[in-house]
Amino acid sequence: MDILKTISQMQKWSKTKKKESKTICFVPTMGYLHQGHISLMEKGKSLCDELVISIFVNPAQFGPNEDLDTYPSNIENDLLLAKKAGVTAVFLPNKDIIYPENFQTEIKLQELPQFLCGKFRPVFFSGVTTVVTKLFNIVMPDIAVFGQKDYQQLQIIRQLVMDLNFDIKIVAGDIIREQDGLAMSSRNAYLSISQRASALCLSKSLHMARDMVDQGEKNPEVIKLKMETFIGTFAETNIEYINFCDPETLEDINVIESETLLAIVVRVGETRLIDNTLL
Amino acid sequence: MDILKTISQMQKWSKTKKKESKTICFVPTMGYLHQGHISLMEKGKSLCDELVISIFVNPAQFGPNEDLDTYPSNIENDLLLAKKAGVTAVFLPNKDIIYPENFQTEIKLQELPQFLCGKFRPVFFSGVTTVVTKLFNIVMPDIAVFGQKDYQQLQIIRQLVMDLNFDIKIVAGDIIREQDGLAMSSRNAYLSISQRASALCLSKSLHMARDMVDQGEKNPEVIKLKMETFIGTFAETNIEYINFCDPETLEDINVIESETLLAIVVRVGETRLIDNTLL
Repeated sequence: MDILKTISQMQKWSKTKKKESKTICFVPTMGYLHQGHISLMEKGKSLCDELVISIFVNPAQFGPNEDLDTYPSNIENDLLLAKKAGVTAVFLPNKDIIYPENFQTEIKLQELPQFLCGKFRPVFFSGVTTVVTKLFNIVMPDIAVFGQKDYQQLQIIRQLVMDLNFDIKIVAGDIIREQDGLAMSSRNAYLSISQRASALCLSKSLHMARDMVDQGEKNPEVIKLKMETFIGTFAETNIEYINFCDPETLEDINVIESETLLAIVVRVGETRLIDNTLL
Repeated sequence: MDILKTISQMQKWSKTKKKESKTICFVPTMGYLHQGHISLMEKGKSLCDELVISIFVNPAQFGPNEDLDTYPSNIENDLLLAKKAGVTAVFLPNKDIIYPENFQTEIKLQELPQFLCGKFRPVFFSGVTTVVTKLFNIVMPDIAVFGQKDYQQLQIIRQLVMDLNFDIKIVAGDIIREQDGLAMSSRNAYLSISQRASALCLSKSLHMARDMVDQGEKNPEVIKLKMETFIGTFAETNIEYINFCDPETLEDINVIESETLLAIVVRVGETRLIDNTLL
């Protein structure tokens, strides 16, 4: 497994592989790898000859009061896990390489970031689309894998790739959960033992919603109220949003009749947790 | 010479050439080709195996009161000139292919577009950087050539390529002039005979400024005043700006002591003409 720290090293590596007619799959990460990342890597590994991951905590996608400074990190362990998962190259840049002095370009989508998390994290998605564009030009993959847990991000990347005509196929990876249902996230590391118990409110309330829809409920407001009441019974929880929307456009829906995305964000203590399901 | 009208055709063409280890040079144009474009193509031809041009009048870089609807066009003649210049492929898309319904991505630089033309054409440069990013992903060149007549555009493209880590070398082409000094431009076609005479005020006033600097003048304001008076003697002229600035950052300078960009925009009748020189 090669570890590449500069842009020119990474580009050279990818160009060499391309000359050898090798296909490249890419999984961008912010490190602190867990089973969710591993499953994206395994998916990537099955689709291409070479598997590249990046580990970069992207400051541009954190707001001023967010957790950039405390974001968990364990590079040594990440590299072990990556190697075990069959990664052939890790792109491991520092901040100054990605954002040198005088950096001044921003990539923004006009519609998709207006919904869901975009309302609460105003700089997040332009930070994501800008860094992903850079990473695509640095890694030059044929395929890139993004997790469905960040559903809005996945949709935005799909739109970005279409709009900017990247010759890259975007593949979605399933949400991977702990045995008790909690969606895997590097941020789960922030939770105390009691908060870890409260964090189950996300997956459990999504489950409840699915049951209600299965039993014929079509009114999002009715389901939302039930979910709010249910989540309120868990200690230290604070709902940021519960949203029923079109899985393509992310626009709110009023009646559940075709496939619907149910996306939810709950703060447990200080920790912002997200989850979603397709109804 | 191949003529490619869809994105997938163009990408396939370029990927085939790359597999054959051919290098690709790219000259983006809005058509109505003149000797200025030809000189960019000749430069490109000398640097790579394959020479691609695009012909696309990009609506995103025209403001609401600008000349999108009247922009001159002569595709048949363009194709003849391109073939003669050794172009091996022309990318000739229509508007709906470049901007399909639901297109929503914009690429903006924060600093360089604040100066010079950016002050007067607020949407221009984000339109340019967005379409050039798309064209780079579609044509996948090794080298791209941009003319120095659009000096600010050239600087912005250089910054864009650095910021987004495109693996593309940007090469500058000289300003090509008519025998009497007028910088070549598709928009010169708008000029009446008397306006064509007035249009000489740009190159002549730049010449005057160079002479003053050669004679030791270091004060931009003194030169600017002389230029304004001089240009005022030509019929139907209206100065948009005369600017002395740093050729890298485009920031205004107060004393001419190191290399300085003198950039000028004059409207002759309705026609907006630009020119510049390095002092």
